[in-house]
Parts: sequence; structure tokens; C-alpha cells
Amino acid sequence: MSSFSSCQSVREARRVAIFGGTHGNELSGVTLVHLWMKNGTEIQRRGVETRPFITNPRAVEKCSRYVDTDLNRAFTPENLSAPADGQLPYEVLRAQEINRMFGPKGSPDAYDVIFDLHNTTSNMGCTLILESSKDHFNLQMINYIQKALAPASCLVLLNEHPLLKYSTARSVAKHPVGLEVGPQPQGVLRSNIFESMREILKHALDFIELFNEGVEFPPCSVPVFRVSERVDYPRDANGNIMAMVHPNLQDCDWEPLNPGDPMFQTFDGKTIRYQGSGTIYPTFINEAAYYEKQQAFVATRRETLSANAVRKA
Amino acid sequence: MSSFSSCQSVREARRVAIFGGTHGNELSGVTLVHLWMKNGTEIQRRGVETRPFITNPRAVEKCSRYVDTDLNRAFTPENLSAPADGQLPYEVLRAQEINRMFGPKGSPDAYDVIFDLHNTTSNMGCTLILESSKDHFNLQMINYIQKALAPASCLVLLNEHPLLKYSTARSVAKHPVGLEVGPQPQGVLRSNIFESMREILKHALDFIELFNEGVEFPPCSVPVFRVSERVDYPRDANGNIMAMVHPNLQDCDWEPLNPGDPMFQTFDGKTIRYQGSGTIYPTFINEAAYYEKQQAFVATRRETLSANAVRKA
Ligand SMILES: [Zn+2]
Ligand SMILES: [Zn+2]
Repeated sequence: MSSFSSCQSVREARRVAIFGGTHGNELSGVTLVHLWMKNGTEIQRRGVETRPFITNPRAVEKCSRYVDTDLNRAFTPENLSAPADGQLPYEVLRAQEINRMFGPKGSPDAYDVIFDLHNTTSNMGCTLILESSKDHFNLQMINYIQKALAPASCLVLLNEHPLLKYSTARSVAKHPVGLEVGPQPQGVLRSNIFESMREILKHALDFIELFNEGVEFPPCSVPVFRVSERVDYPRDANGNIMAMVHPNLQDCDWEPLNPGDPMFQTFDGKTIRYQGSGTIYPTFINEAAYYEKQQAFVATRRETLSANAVRKA
Repeated sequence: MSSFSSCQSVREARRVAIFGGTHGNELSGVTLVHLWMKNGTEIQRRGVETRPFITNPRAVEKCSRYVDTDLNRAFTPENLSAPADGQLPYEVLRAQEINRMFGPKGSPDAYDVIFDLHNTTSNMGCTLILESSKDHFNLQMINYIQKALAPASCLVLLNEHPLLKYSTARSVAKHPVGLEVGPQPQGVLRSNIFESMREILKHALDFIELFNEGVEFPPCSVPVFRVSERVDYPRDANGNIMAMVHPNLQDCDWEPLNPGDPMFQTFDGKTIRYQGSGTIYPTFINEAAYYEKQQAFVATRRETLSANAVRKA
């Protein structure tokens, strides 16, 4: 196999959007986007049009995750093609509007890259979220970001799970990138989380500029955590939780959980242990927004993806 | 001065309430109260009737701080005496109901002690909140709790400030005690925070049992942090914040802030320093719920209160 044959031609990335406020109480993205809407110097790059955009302004106004329904689950084909008759939930109407502005999803007219900025209450550090293991442009961008950030780290969560994958706002773009930084409580802006997010965006935009200038990026490998399962809290017949995340697991996002390890602690002090087969790597541990989604953490498995060399078509 | 003359007779504390869910998204108190409503063995003490109670069930249902207005600011004389005509905000009606059940506030019929359970996103650890420096029963209870917890600590925030004091739910009782434990994000239940809160309640109820049995508690001194000022984020003309809590101050609740110390960091990296006179001890630093109250932290000053000996009348 020659290096020539494995180099993939990718259309240049002229139109880039940065979404903030997809969840209105995740303040790092809201604040960065507001800042850049006033003065975009920091996100300008040669040959790239970068558009900062508040996706859910009514949720931002209320400092709540959403108004009627989760915008970041709303970009389904059914929603995007529903007749806009005024009876639809606010976020469904908004998804249609965003799809018209930055899509249409899956079409040649769609934006090239959308970065969607999120915060989590979990101790996940900096995380890039991918929706496809075959998007070599994104994999190369991640590799670039990781090298630029070192020795600080930025992990990759890959969600290609047939049942657990959801219809994100960023999925409108050709290359959707989720950026999840924590821990940060909802409704709080922490300087360390804010600056980490800002730095990742800087490197991501630098990569796009270099790519558009014709730089070729050689093959590389990218370690990822692939979503494998959703694990709920133990609950009673009324749906009330009966146990908390065990102190040994709390804040230990990305660390191995082995069969027999403590997972939950009941209110009378009993330990519930992980009974699955093989090592998993929990993440989104005890995320506030996921109580309503019946999810105490997301189980992942480690693997390494191979990224083809890419260059501008 | 003989020890006899300084011993204060206090009415026994037969009726005690434990409030959870005064803010519906502060889950330690909500969970403990739900637990104890199902099985109250843990909070039963000889000669004490202890009643666990969810104060804002509609906010708990929504997992939000409140529905119409902050319940923990609603117990003003105006609200409590307003004609209940159905036009009142939900929390004002609820305050009237709670006042009928546990008060009336300021009357001999009021409950003896109300513990009100709160969580904060700030790094405050375990904090007891007092509304009066002259409540010797409460001061003795705090001294008892602190000794029982040692070497773990539980600090005391005293809010007697003429302008900054507010009309709490617990203020209905003869002896109101706020319990504030953090850091815990809104909508999240952390086992460490939950267990800390539970342990403090245990010691508090033990004290009440001993007191009712006639044990005399000798004079003691109680170090407190007295609320002196409210400090807001720097804001622009539209009320949007222009700076974040400085990383040197973030998570440093109860630590001294001296003139010249970094206090805020603007979005372009400039440091705003504390310019006041003398050392303050900030707390409630970067609390999520206080953005809407124009408050980045509460400034306090340290002092030591003297508690009289107390025994049952
Ligand atoms: Zn989010
Ligand atoms: Zn509270």
C-alpha cells in the first residue's frame, strides 16, 4: 500500500459554524459565542467563514437546558420534515430553522463543519464527540488538536451505537464535532473550563486553515472510547432512584470499571457492583441532565481508529 | 459572675421539622426527606416529634429551584398576610400554607426547630446558617455538632445583615437552622455530600434529645463568618457579565481575600483585584443560583460568639 493510494481528498472547509447554547444552561459555549458575536477576530482564519451562533436563545434566556424538548435530540428526519403548523414544540421549529440555515442535513449545501459547545457536570475533562469512525477529516483534526494541546489531554467519545446515537444539532453539517468540557455545574461559568474550551477551538480552527491551504496530513491513529451501553440508576417501582453513584466511581470518568468493582451505593449503605463481562470505561458519570434520560453513566470500550491521510480536493 | 446566673433556661424542643426541597433542584435534602418520609427510624429521638417535609413539591417535581419565585425569600410579613386570592405566585401561597402548618412565625405555637436542607454549587463544605447571634440554643447545638464531627469541620455563616438578611422558610420556627452542603451541581446527587448532610442531622437530633432530657450545656464560644456584603460580577450596560471568578478565588470559599488579591478575570484575560479595606472571607463563590441575584460571592468577616450555658426550662 503506497502512501499515495491512502490519501483521501476532502472538500475544503469554507463554511464553519460554532454553536453555543444548544443547552441553555451550559455557560461556557453560551459565553464564548456571545463574545465572538460581538468581536470575531479570535475565530477568523484565512479562507474560512466562521459563524458563531446561539442555537436555543429561549433556553439561554431562561438558563434552562431546553424549553419544550431537548434541541440536541430534535434533528430527526421526522422533525425536520414535519409541517410547521405552530403546534410543534419550540425546539422542533428551531431545528427546522437551523436546518434551513446550516443544512439541509445530508445535502451538498450543508455547512462543512459545525462545532457544538457543551458542558457537563461530570468529571470528563475535555472531550471531543464524534458521530462517525469514518470521517477522516474529523479524525485528522482531532489528532492535530491532541498534539497541539499536549501534555494536556483531550479524549474522544465515539457514538455510532445504532440505538444510543441521537440526532444532534451539529449533525446538520458534513463534519459534526461535539465539544464537551467539564466538570461545570449547570448555570455556572468557571474560568478553567471556559479557557479549555476556547483553546480547543483555537487549534481546531488552525487545523482548518492549514487544511484549506493545502497541507497534507499523513495517516495517524486516534484512540477513542466507543459508546457501548447506557447504565441507569437502580430505581423503585415509581421510578425514584434507590442508590447513588458509588464514591469509588464518582468523578472517575474514563477510568476502567472491572467486573466486581463498586458501581452504586444504596441509601442504607449497601454496595452494588458491576456485574458485566469485561472492562468498561464509564463516562458522563452522574451528569445532571441525564437523570431524566434514565442514565447514570455511559459505558464505553476503548479502541484505536486509523485515519487516512487527507488533503484538500 | 456565677455559672448559675449565666445559665439560660430554654423551652424544650418537642416539635422539630426537617425541610427538604425548599429549592427543588438541591437533591441531598430532597432525597433525605423522601427517605425519612418512608421510614423515619433514623430521625426518631426520645421525646421529640420530628417531621420530614417537602416544602416545594412542584419545584421538586420539575427539578428546578422554584416555579414562580424563590420560596426561601417568600416568608415576609407582607406575603404571609396577603389575602390568598389565587392570583398569588405559587410559592407565596405555599409559604402561607407552611406558615399555618409550622408557625405562625413569631408565635408561641410555632415549631421549636426547623432544619432546612440546601446544597450549593460552591466549594463551601458543610455550613450551618444562623439568623441570630443571640440564639443560645442554636449556638450550643452548633458547638455540639462541631465537636461530634471533629476532625471533620462544619463552619457557621451568620446572616444578621439588615439589608442582606432574607425571609427564609425556616424562619417560621423558634430556632431556624439552615444546612448548606457543597459542592454539588443542581440536579445531581453526590454520595459524599448526601452522607455529610445526613451525619450533621444525626448529631443535631442527638443534641435535641440530650437537651430535652435535661442535660446542661456549659458556656462556649462559636467562631462564625458574619455576612457583611454582597459582591456582584462585573457587568456591561445590558447586565451581561464581563468577567469570571478568578481561578485564584474559585473554590476558595472561607479563605482570606486581601486587598490586592485577584478576584475576577475578564474574558480578555485581565485581572480585577479586590480593592476593599481589610481582609474578607468570601463564600457562596460562583453559586449557580446567585447569578440572577447579582451576586458572585458573599463577603464575610470572622468573629467569635459567646454562647451562654443553656438547659431546659
Ligand atoms: Zn449539552
Ligand atoms: Zn438552596
